Amino acid sequence: MKIFVIGAHGQVGRKIVSKLVAQGDQVFAGIRNPEQAQAFEDAGAEPVGFNLLDQPEELAVAFKGMDAIVFAAGSGGQTGYDMTLNIDLDGAVKSMEAAELAGVKRYVMISAEFTPDRRQWPQVLRPYYVAKYYADEWLKTRTHLDYTILQPGNLLNDAGTGKVTVNPSAGGGITRDDVAAFAVQSLATPATVGKTIALINGDTPIATAVQA
Amino acid sequence: MKIFVIGAHGQVGRKIVSKLVAQGDQVFAGIRNPEQAQAFEDAGAEPVGFNLLDQPEELAVAFKGMDAIVFAAGSGGQTGYDMTLNIDLDGAVKSMEAAELAGVKRYVMISAEFTPDRRQWPQVLRPYYVAKYYADEWLKTRTHLDYTILQPGNLLNDAGTGKVTVNPSAGGGITRDDVAAFAVQSLATPATVGKTIALINGDTPIATAVQA
Repeated sequence: MKIFVIGAHGQVGRKIVSKLVAQGDQVFAGIRNPEQAQAFEDAGAEPVGFNLLDQPEELAVAFKGMDAIVFAAGSGGQTGYDMTLNIDLDGAVKSMEAAELAGVKRYVMISAEFTPDRRQWPQVLRPYYVAKYYADEWLKTRTHLDYTILQPGNLLNDAGTGKVTVNPSAGGGITRDDVAAFAVQSLATPATVGKTIALINGDTPIATAVQA
Repeated sequence: MKIFVIGAHGQVGRKIVSKLVAQGDQVFAGIRNPEQAQAFEDAGAEPVGFNLLDQPEELAVAFKGMDAIVFAAGSGGQTGYDMTLNIDLDGAVKSMEAAELAGVKRYVMISAEFTPDRRQWPQVLRPYYVAKYYADEWLKTRTHLDYTILQPGNLLNDAGTGKVTVNPSAGGGITRDDVAAFAVQSLATPATVGKTIALINGDTPIATAVQA
């Protein structure tokens, strides 16, 4: 499959790219900084200049011919909340509009645990959750995309375990490697279309959990 | 009518309150800072403690028995973009949910010109427009409120003219006094329900323009 990864240089994005390349997919790595290009070429992916501040019509050019899009971008802790608004919310929605303009149906969003319920938003992260919430809601209600929304718990840098619990009754942690693995398997699993899936590390192999 | 003004202490909010009081409405002024209460009592309105960081169920308590709600709040230039997310976007949406919880149907939103078209958003104000855009969209598509969305142009402190142009072909300025006058007349004008109205100063008397 031809898969475009938005935010390919992010911590989860890089893992998604390498896993997709490893299983033989043709991966297009959306990057803002040209200096990141060589690393993706070396890794067997095709770097593509991509800026979520652009308009949907411009973003759509990069999506032409893709089979799926993964949104793994995040404005990150170093930038201000202006970028939370511009990237995590409006950038995400523009990428959805671009996907529809380009005729790409499949769209996997990396969101965050607790996003659907503002009563559970950690106080200090509230502005970030506001952005993620309205982006997720737009994807569910204002597009006709074949979406999957993944809402992982607290992201960890530990080695992947290959095992998760979906839609847990309480919060928890999950390795970035397992989030990436779940995203990659979601792309190949029609049962995940139209689903919002909370995700922490647990006891179920990802290959099984993704079918649930 | 019993009317609740969210952001009553703002520059437009204060004018809305005084115009409503002047025409004999019972006005409830939502304020965050108790020190603002006396001024509203002196002006013939009833100050009500109200914080858009609260949850919808809490906000709904203040809305019980109201005939209409006017959203005139804005996080303002002094606060950070975290408050743009928390107040202008999520706070606005929570107030809509609260209105529905309290059984109040009528809701007038003070938005901003160009909000529906991100290509026209002034670059430096982009984060603010992102927040206003998603709040307006939520009001239109995710609620069953009898809404009116007013999108005034560049806000001026000049004396009111009493005359406007609605849905102009280009941008322009409008006095805060005329925005407030249009909002007040919208509340009494069923023809404005379900409409999004751009607004600059012009040649049509507000009493006529509001019927268009």
